Amino acid sequence: METGIARFQTPLYLESGRILEPWQIAYETYGTLNRDKSNVVLVTHALTGSHHAAGLYPGDRKPGWWDKMIGEGKPIDTRKYFVIATNVIGSCFGSTSPTSPIYPGSDEEYRLKFPVITIRDMVRAQKIFLERHFNLRSIRAVIGGSMGGMQALRFAVDFPGFVEKVIPMATTYQTRPFVIAINKTMIEAIRADQRFKNGYYDREEIKRNGLPGLATARMIGYLNYLSPTTFDKKFGRSYVKTDGHFELFGRFQVENYLEYNGYNFPKWFDPLSYIYLLKAISLFDIARGFSSVEEAFRQIEDPIYLISFTGDTLFFPEEMEEIEEWLKKLEKPVKHFKIDSDYGHDSFLVEVEKFGNIVADILAGQI
Amino acid sequence: METGIARFQTPLYLESGRILEPWQIAYETYGTLNRDKSNVVLVTHALTGSHHAAGLYPGDRKPGWWDKMIGEGKPIDTRKYFVIATNVIGSCFGSTSPTSPIYPGSDEEYRLKFPVITIRDMVRAQKIFLERHFNLRSIRAVIGGSMGGMQALRFAVDFPGFVEKVIPMATTYQTRPFVIAINKTMIEAIRADQRFKNGYYDREEIKRNGLPGLATARMIGYLNYLSPTTFDKKFGRSYVKTDGHFELFGRFQVENYLEYNGYNFPKWFDPLSYIYLLKAISLFDIARGFSSVEEAFRQIEDPIYLISFTGDTLFFPEEMEEIEEWLKKLEKPVKHFKIDSDYGHDSFLVEVEKFGNIVADILAGQI
Repeated sequence: METGIARFQTPLYLESGRILEPWQIAYETYGTLNRDKSNVVLVTHALTGSHHAAGLYPGDRKPGWWDKMIGEGKPIDTRKYFVIATNVIGSCFGSTSPTSPIYPGSDEEYRLKFPVITIRDMVRAQKIFLERHFNLRSIRAVIGGSMGGMQALRFAVDFPGFVEKVIPMATTYQTRPFVIAINKTMIEAIRADQRFKNGYYDREEIKRNGLPGLATARMIGYLNYLSPTTFDKKFGRSYVKTDGHFELFGRFQVENYLEYNGYNFPKWFDPLSYIYLLKAISLFDIARGFSSVEEAFRQIEDPIYLISFTGDTLFFPEEMEEIEEWLKKLEKPVKHFKIDSDYGHDSFLVEVEKFGNIVADILAGQI
Repeated sequence: METGIARFQTPLYLESGRILEPWQIAYETYGTLNRDKSNVVLVTHALTGSHHAAGLYPGDRKPGWWDKMIGEGKPIDTRKYFVIATNVIGSCFGSTSPTSPIYPGSDEEYRLKFPVITIRDMVRAQKIFLERHFNLRSIRAVIGGSMGGMQALRFAVDFPGFVEKVIPMATTYQTRPFVIAINKTMIEAIRADQRFKNGYYDREEIKRNGLPGLATARMIGYLNYLSPTTFDKKFGRSYVKTDGHFELFGRFQVENYLEYNGYNFPKWFDPLSYIYLLKAISLFDIARGFSSVEEAFRQIEDPIYLISFTGDTLFFPEEMEEIEEWLKKLEKPVKHFKIDSDYGHDSFLVEVEKFGNIVADILAGQI
């Protein structure tokens, strides 16, 4: 495992017409790049993910977010593949983001002056990074779920021929208004908190004392990361033992769980990055820049391996079926693996045992 | 249409062990009570509903919340039935609530000292009201959706023989942890707003200047009142024309809709009532006070007419199927009408043309 930051002095031209200059990308790698540079697997992260996809940092209790997937003998086997994970532009784990200095050496941070970032921008930045930092002309595969799946699709459409195998999971080709609405409520929860100070909050103060609006936003997220059935199985209607049933703020276990994860969130995630990434997800439309969805998909040259989950209530499997249908109609190489699951959207993070073998086989060229 | 407030000087014993004394209920009636008092239909409201179920107040643009259902020649035909709608205890439209004086003549309001209210309490209060105010020993029917459906079921279980026909719509017998989680995020959104002042907000100030935390809560609600498909049909991915695509706070039409309904909400609904009613919904469990769900349903004597909607993503039709199965197993009279709809939970408010005839037939004894 190697962690680093790649810095670029050349401008990054964004879809909005704005420019980031200089800019940087935090990244992590696992395994060894082979001699002919043919074993690269790019892992793209979801909303709150990072370049820390696997392995354990000294002192940490939890490993990287896809540790079950990446490592020796695991589905993305680091004895075979050189795995690269980056932190997307806009996110708060080391890549250029709203809390970066507005120019080198400045005390002033971008904050709300940071440009709106799109999935296309994230992908473009990663491609530049792969080309310049590792001198790559193509990669074996790109794989990611949710916002990571959007990036995978965008790679296929925007840079045909660059990726041998494209593996979008639990995602969509065009964010539906229902998801835009979820994102909106999360953004509103943050903005409604006076301690957010319209983006000019004290970062250290938030880490110390929390930001209840951001905590609420995180709790809203969970409503669609887990399926109603998972809520049933995980919590039932158990009540916190020390809370009174007829206390107004007495809690069911599920409420305790949401509080724990919600209130913890501001300690490790930045509210502005959260808003910017939600905006990127809401704006995501594979057709942007093309005359239609069909025209966008027509660009694709590389085989697409879709992995969807029946119980996903955020990006419904039907949306990935639509991608499959478009691509088949266009006679593009596509396979769709529908994983039977009632876990919910987070299946791609949690139920590795259900799809790990499929991913291993795709990477090995056996499917 | 007649509107009034019924005041009671006798104690209302609550499920929590606490007492409301004095207490009052705001109500509205439509049609005429017949001589043998056999034509009463009680309409029970949902979370943000009120006793104003039909008709237009002078100066109002919008009629009562179920105006399409109640009136001359409408499914609940006021030429035949005497319709009574009350405002539930805890709600903010005139019945005793967290903003009522803590004792008669006091300037101090209950606020957080108000007792936790349950669906059982709401129903008990309504029964006392019906008995004392109208001198009723039984009623023809009770009908309501969502929280209103919970009340209908509670009437059937707690007061067997009191209602001839029980019509619960779009509801459940036991609030699932998924819904408790939704309620939690709404409660958190309100509490996180410093202007809520832990329940000691200035009521007039909120009506004037709004309460963004309550606005956010309302927006969260919409995520499950409408189905993802309805979001597609209603809004698509249209963007507000005057907003920039790459402005961080530029808005899709769906966001505009949520803002409009969200920011308007604090003008007509009280944040404490909202929290208390959400708590009542989370606590709802038909089995409370009985050894099991089965034991609760065993109490039922009156025919139950369930109406569920296939696209309901808040109280899933499967939950009403479970009620049907319990009741059939217990050999209780039950009919279940599954309405084919992709509208979502709010179907019971919106799609009257799909179930109005069924309700009319049930009331007339033709089904």
